[in-house]
Amino acid sequence: MLDQRLLPGEEHWITLEGAAGVAQSIRDMVVRGAPAIGISAAYGVALAARHAGGGDWKAEIKQSIRELAASRPTAVNLFWALQRMERVFHACHSLDEAEKRLANEAEAIHDEDLAANFAMADHALEFIGAEKPLSVLTHCNTGALATGGYGTALGVVRRLHEEKLLKDVYADETRPWLQGGGLTAWELSRDGIPVTLNADGAAAAILARNDVRWVIVGADRITANGDVVNKIGTYSLAVLARHHKVGFMVVAPSSTVDMALESGADVPIEERDGIEVREIRGIPLAPEGVNVFNPVFDVTPANLIDAIVTEKGVVHNPNITGMRALFG
Amino acid sequence: MLDQRLLPGEEHWITLEGAAGVAQSIRDMVVRGAPAIGISAAYGVALAARHAGGGDWKAEIKQSIRELAASRPTAVNLFWALQRMERVFHACHSLDEAEKRLANEAEAIHDEDLAANFAMADHALEFIGAEKPLSVLTHCNTGALATGGYGTALGVVRRLHEEKLLKDVYADETRPWLQGGGLTAWELSRDGIPVTLNADGAAAAILARNDVRWVIVGADRITANGDVVNKIGTYSLAVLARHHKVGFMVVAPSSTVDMALESGADVPIEERDGIEVREIRGIPLAPEGVNVFNPVFDVTPANLIDAIVTEKGVVHNPNITGMRALFG
Repeated sequence: MLDQRLLPGEEHWITLEGAAGVAQSIRDMVVRGAPAIGISAAYGVALAARHAGGGDWKAEIKQSIRELAASRPTAVNLFWALQRMERVFHACHSLDEAEKRLANEAEAIHDEDLAANFAMADHALEFIGAEKPLSVLTHCNTGALATGGYGTALGVVRRLHEEKLLKDVYADETRPWLQGGGLTAWELSRDGIPVTLNADGAAAAILARNDVRWVIVGADRITANGDVVNKIGTYSLAVLARHHKVGFMVVAPSSTVDMALESGADVPIEERDGIEVREIRGIPLAPEGVNVFNPVFDVTPANLIDAIVTEKGVVHNPNITGMRALFG
Repeated sequence: MLDQRLLPGEEHWITLEGAAGVAQSIRDMVVRGAPAIGISAAYGVALAARHAGGGDWKAEIKQSIRELAASRPTAVNLFWALQRMERVFHACHSLDEAEKRLANEAEAIHDEDLAANFAMADHALEFIGAEKPLSVLTHCNTGALATGGYGTALGVVRRLHEEKLLKDVYADETRPWLQGGGLTAWELSRDGIPVTLNADGAAAAILARNDVRWVIVGADRITANGDVVNKIGTYSLAVLARHHKVGFMVVAPSSTVDMALESGADVPIEERDGIEVREIRGIPLAPEGVNVFNPVFDVTPANLIDAIVTEKGVVHNPNITGMRALFG
């Protein structure tokens, strides 16, 4: 795994040999991004099978699945991927068979995610229907680093660029983890895609300049009514986009959709240690021990969203009817 | 001067002997906050008089005033304070007289700012009319560190606390300079006032929780129509406050009001080097050389503001008529 916490300063790769290490890496945000977390967890289960002892291998793999499921609470792709792996696991009669079939299933999850990225980009471009280059604004990182390899929201940006329809991408720096600078600007710069980094607080001023046509973001969980749970700061952008009459688009694979939950209010929102705001890499930015509110995600209500784009198609002005039509 | 850039890690005081050093300190943000910048510049002119050579002392002081005026472009308090100093300077017939009278005038500007802080807090509390403790959200630093010693928006917070009417203050961390953690949380913690720090992107989620009744901010320039130019991120809060039916209050001394400018569109908005976003204290947060949009201020249109509070009184639902009634 590429340790995403050290970017853009250092490209450091970590070799993981078992599920425990994968679970720890997800918890510690070595890897992040809902689809990438799901794919990583799937490979974690495959590793558990590869390294299971000869004894009660079923119990060992089950325990690894439990450990992976406990790594982070909000993104549903994690649980979705583990359920797929569990179904395959339950059908296996020997450790040999499990090792082979779980590795194949993890690779399938990975490949399908990449294919879904391409399909989403197709749907989004058709929906946007741009005839001349436009600028967009995005939040957090939803690109190759967060997915099977192309991107959800950033996949749409890549496709716009490939079609010569992209003027500029504004990338929110996305405190506290700064994925905008470290990951999004890093990955777009490497691929020669124009990007302008901004402090999160500057997004409103950017939208007021009348240059950006779409705010495009990913998602960690989408509920049955079309509410979207995504990186903290997303909800703010949705309110700002509506105020400025700018389109607001959510791009995520259908594995992010959780029809079992009625609305965003039902999603457990992870809160992390205040030290993520009080410090950056050990440098104090606030008094030691000062109280911090540090939710990792927020809920954007469906009525602020113009389109949810998945590989299965687009839900325009999402509500429960539109969601059911596409996701059953 | 206390070097505010090193807080909260280090309390480092700098001794300045002349106007050039004061101008440099304003430019480099050793001191910031519109009223504090005005006061500092006034003392800078007094220092220029103290150290003027026996030769053409008038030319020397004039040159210092020019240098101070060029330090930062947006906050009007700087130009207001320098005009006051200049008027006194022009009435002086000897260097001795100038030294004495300019020192007195700088002290008067300082004292009056502090008195204005207290008056604003009175007006604001009367306007809010709270009967039980409430929570507020603020942006940047508008406290003792930004003013003559009590605060504008943070003066209102202090007064609410003194009157036992304050539940909690949420402090936006305020990227890129992080005044929320380094200055606001630092100064409130030292004074035993409850404060909760949050990433700027979390403000919308906080307002959605229905706990905060007022967003209270300062200003760097207020134009004749009631538009407010203030730290980047303020405009975002104003849109969010309106969306959540939370009050939005601007607190600033009348020296911040610039009736010569029609609207916020006429105010020069300082943009600073992208390195302020790309790095924190030399640690890279984004790829070297990546394009950055780094405006220091934004414009909040008058129609999103519920009240502008100055020491002269309150302009409710500001517009040109209300502004003229109070500021001529």
